Amino acid sequence: MAVTPMRRDDAAPDGSGLAARLSIRDGLHRGPTSGLAPGYVQGNLAILPKDLAADFMRFCQLNPKSCPLIGASEPGDWRVPSLGEDLDIRTDIPRYRVWRNGELVAEPDDLRDVWRDDLVCFVIGCSFSFEEALMADGIEVRHVAMSRTVPMYRTSIATREAGPFHGPMVVSMRPMTPAAAIRAVQITTRFPSVHGAPVHIGKPELIGIRDLAKPDYGDAVPVRDDELPVFWACGVTPQSVIATVKPEFCITHYPGTMLVTDRKNTEFAIM
Amino acid sequence: MAVTPMRRDDAAPDGSGLAARLSIRDGLHRGPTSGLAPGYVQGNLAILPKDLAADFMRFCQLNPKSCPLIGASEPGDWRVPSLGEDLDIRTDIPRYRVWRNGELVAEPDDLRDVWRDDLVCFVIGCSFSFEEALMADGIEVRHVAMSRTVPMYRTSIATREAGPFHGPMVVSMRPMTPAAAIRAVQITTRFPSVHGAPVHIGKPELIGIRDLAKPDYGDAVPVRDDELPVFWACGVTPQSVIATVKPEFCITHYPGTMLVTDRKNTEFAIM
Repeated sequence: MAVTPMRRDDAAPDGSGLAARLSIRDGLHRGPTSGLAPGYVQGNLAILPKDLAADFMRFCQLNPKSCPLIGASEPGDWRVPSLGEDLDIRTDIPRYRVWRNGELVAEPDDLRDVWRDDLVCFVIGCSFSFEEALMADGIEVRHVAMSRTVPMYRTSIATREAGPFHGPMVVSMRPMTPAAAIRAVQITTRFPSVHGAPVHIGKPELIGIRDLAKPDYGDAVPVRDDELPVFWACGVTPQSVIATVKPEFCITHYPGTMLVTDRKNTEFAIM
Repeated sequence: MAVTPMRRDDAAPDGSGLAARLSIRDGLHRGPTSGLAPGYVQGNLAILPKDLAADFMRFCQLNPKSCPLIGASEPGDWRVPSLGEDLDIRTDIPRYRVWRNGELVAEPDDLRDVWRDDLVCFVIGCSFSFEEALMADGIEVRHVAMSRTVPMYRTSIATREAGPFHGPMVVSMRPMTPAAAIRAVQITTRFPSVHGAPVHIGKPELIGIRDLAKPDYGDAVPVRDDELPVFWACGVTPQSVIATVKPEFCITHYPGTMLVTDRKNTEFAIM
């Protein structure tokens, strides 16, 4: 059984990942985590019973573009020390989704009441990291500029299955001029652990997307005549895949409220 | 005055850049150099009088994607030791084009009769190097597969001018599936001295190209419905720019017959 380490507010300077987590833990921050602790890696959460954990981990390993695993806990443990020293998965995310047999049964802001000793936590990289790098390079990220959620689409691209886990890749889309799209390939290639390079450019119909104006998740954004839609593998893929497996019990983060870590986005750049 | 170094056939193993140059020098190879000395860098040639050389060098420096300078000689010198020890620009290219006041006046296979002591040689990187890397990665290069010359187009993208040198960028086009186009951006980014990453993807009309089926140079190739046209800055740009300047005297290589060097393509990869 894990023991929560002693809390050290003095080690949490303003704007740090730890400061963001403590603020969430104290109930002071309840909304989306976009914009919290700039420069720090945020992650998607999936919590599964131990008997599914090995298959899910293998699924992530087989599908690194959509499921880039950046941290995993020991069974029953709510800590992921590689992502943050004082980190409690049960309390440090603003809101969660609890699923039983594929049905959403609760959206609590604390997991301590539903915690089980057989649960394994998985933290999966998120596009916030590469979006920060794109914007730092002067590339407009449309949904951020419009304060919308990125548009996401289920595709005809199959993931590689592992045990019960299978299903289509979900992608996010950002419209860009051709020159910006080329630059975005270069920039996001540097970040393989947060989805990496795009999986598709320019022809949505080739990956089973019928109408860009009707995303399966998130909000639509306009694509101008001088732009191409650019598609990245999306961290919603594992949630979509888990939904098809309908595990007896499972927890994910509430969309938009992620785990803020102590790792820096720049640490995740491979060059 | 330059002195040609002693010829050393014993230092020219079969398939090497030097062996290719000696074969050309001896009149044994007269056609295109594509496929000669696989793995060795080939270059575009421009020879200009000394009084234009500084401006042209600055033009290359300002336009590194279309005019990646990989070697230059001293005035009056036909050697470029950084590209090959036993290298004689006057004899080591299968065929040349001699221009006077912008008019093509001769296409000799040897420059010794027209050589002048004020000439400066410029060698500019060529797409053969990155095409080799693309094909090694399993990407089809359409014009190579069809044994055609790559299709090239004058664009509405202006080069940055230097002295009298100015004019539109010329691009080459290779059709690719979106996934291959993304991979091609990654691969060619590694080769900045041979044009580097593409300059455009997907929408030819945005860069002033009206009809892909009617290239300004080279041969048209089909673009399939599941493909995007991918455009790279082209080493024909400096020739096109020199043609607008109409220098009193100038020499270029005959299209398709390049200078084969002793440098390896892999040396030019920045990572």
